[in-house]
Amino acid sequence: MSRPKVVIARHLGAEVMAMLDRPDIDVVAWPSETKACHRKWLLSNVVGATGLLIMLSDKVDAELLDAAGAGLRVVSTMSVGYEHVDVSQLGKRGIRLGYTPDILTEAVADVSVMLALMVGRDVGIATAVVRNGEWPNNPWAPFAFCGPQLSANSVNPIRTAGFIGFGRIAQATLTRLVPFGFTHCVYTGNPSSAADPTLDAALAEKFGLRSVRRVALDELARESDVVFVLAPGGQSTFHVVNEAFLKQMKNSAVLVNTSRGPLVDSDALAKACRERWIWGAGVDVVEGEPNITVDHPLIKEPRCIVLPHIGSATTETRLGMATLAVKNLLGGVLNEEMPTEYKFT
Amino acid sequence: MSRPKVVIARHLGAEVMAMLDRPDIDVVAWPSETKACHRKWLLSNVVGATGLLIMLSDKVDAELLDAAGAGLRVVSTMSVGYEHVDVSQLGKRGIRLGYTPDILTEAVADVSVMLALMVGRDVGIATAVVRNGEWPNNPWAPFAFCGPQLSANSVNPIRTAGFIGFGRIAQATLTRLVPFGFTHCVYTGNPSSAADPTLDAALAEKFGLRSVRRVALDELARESDVVFVLAPGGQSTFHVVNEAFLKQMKNSAVLVNTSRGPLVDSDALAKACRERWIWGAGVDVVEGEPNITVDHPLIKEPRCIVLPHIGSATTETRLGMATLAVKNLLGGVLNEEMPTEYKFT
Repeated sequence: MSRPKVVIARHLGAEVMAMLDRPDIDVVAWPSETKACHRKWLLSNVVGATGLLIMLSDKVDAELLDAAGAGLRVVSTMSVGYEHVDVSQLGKRGIRLGYTPDILTEAVADVSVMLALMVGRDVGIATAVVRNGEWPNNPWAPFAFCGPQLSANSVNPIRTAGFIGFGRIAQATLTRLVPFGFTHCVYTGNPSSAADPTLDAALAEKFGLRSVRRVALDELARESDVVFVLAPGGQSTFHVVNEAFLKQMKNSAVLVNTSRGPLVDSDALAKACRERWIWGAGVDVVEGEPNITVDHPLIKEPRCIVLPHIGSATTETRLGMATLAVKNLLGGVLNEEMPTEYKFT
Repeated sequence: MSRPKVVIARHLGAEVMAMLDRPDIDVVAWPSETKACHRKWLLSNVVGATGLLIMLSDKVDAELLDAAGAGLRVVSTMSVGYEHVDVSQLGKRGIRLGYTPDILTEAVADVSVMLALMVGRDVGIATAVVRNGEWPNNPWAPFAFCGPQLSANSVNPIRTAGFIGFGRIAQATLTRLVPFGFTHCVYTGNPSSAADPTLDAALAEKFGLRSVRRVALDELARESDVVFVLAPGGQSTFHVVNEAFLKQMKNSAVLVNTSRGPLVDSDALAKACRERWIWGAGVDVVEGEPNITVDHPLIKEPRCIVLPHIGSATTETRLGMATLAVKNLLGGVLNEEMPTEYKFT
């Protein structure tokens, strides 16, 4: 009997690739770690594959699945999101899907808090002053580089964190904000379920906050000192942060997006920074990334900090994600348990 | 009777200056908010003053006190440190000293955590890639931009914070690190007192850590995942972080200095970053600041993030500091209570 073929759409480093060096499978791997796999390569190599391991940059649609043929048992993505995968097509064809939730929760929560701090402190402007040799002309002065304080203080003892999407990463972010003196939390939930005051009271108790409340989007915009965008991608959340939302935010508030670029309308956000509807923004993801050049409206805003999608980029977390993606792949290929398998509804 | 004269070495903004607009004092104020007061101006205007309000940039020594004359009752500095003030001279002359502790604790703790996060995530390099339009050539890749994770994770469940100096700001920083999954804390104490295991056990209990231990400097260097320099300035702490210290740190560790520049030997730190003795560094203060130009060794290190002394730079905190400095000044001038008065020993 011929050995099952697995296609790996990215080189995963020597340590993780070694896990695939086993006698019971044939491995075909895209050779580069830094460059995304070409669609053409994928379409031709996926023919006859039993398993496929992909990144966020690899689209899994009917065309690719047709090319693979009936033997494909599993698609394993090294990502927490799966908006690049046509889930309904997988369901129809009985192909299992593996993804890597949870493992990146702490790393992304770290970056979310970091961006909230960096924006309030005008770090983009402050580091540019130093880098450009302008510190000597900008000595310590009572109100130089001053922005809104993230932590509670005598002027603003009430601090409210707002979360668009209130899953694991959002809650890990909130956990970190508690000792900064945050007192309240508002969040938006899945519109298909009803608000639950008993749950909210239990959450307030758990986090040690004065209140946690599920609210409508406009109330969230009005009440939050920091808004964290941490919802899944897809059509239902496309441009959930738009001009109307940003206009309702406090002038001193900060917007942080560490989920998916398309949730935020970049032009509206740039305008909000430029016209000071809000204090500023920190985004780890941008619609259209990585094709973000120096003429992009967000790059030109000094009050907007843009990171190149490094939310989960720690050595520990990425090793964990890659390892988990390989385990999901092998589980699917060998008809065994997959550690984190997507449940089709 | 003539009204007491008060000299204000910096314009403090309209809101705070209005507090000095009162019939029982004469105010002489340096007109600029952004530029430090000239020594010459100070020496000539301080003559006959009853009170003097200064910044970190204004040196108070015998020469200045002689110029002021016997009528000087109070020096009020808008800073938590007072290494720019000859305290023994004030003591000898019976001049009261006001400073602004505590009020900036939360703001500086915020920046300390922010720098620890920024260094681990290579934010200097990551933001430069975006700013220079290089994101399209640096798409998401499994191990791109990866650094050590600040928060606890399955690979490194043990996280140790080290504090050189363990006063209020250090403890506020530690409080913030707890939900990042920190498990241990080591600190160096005042060498004139003995270590106290009972106190350390109580601190571990208070912060919810597995251990808090006062240790010697070399043990602190070896054990910490992040070292926070948060001790007072002055001769006893000059270059406490030097080559010997940095060589003992972990390769994956981060150094953060948010106290005073001279505690860290800049040349040694640049070498430690360049030769990868440590992962990187984040400094809000640099010896010789603000005269730090593009040829400074720390500016040239991509793994060193340099901020222009913005630790307490939030609108809320700086307003609070300026207000407190004015209250201390008025208390001293009017022979009344000063809210935060230095206690001579």
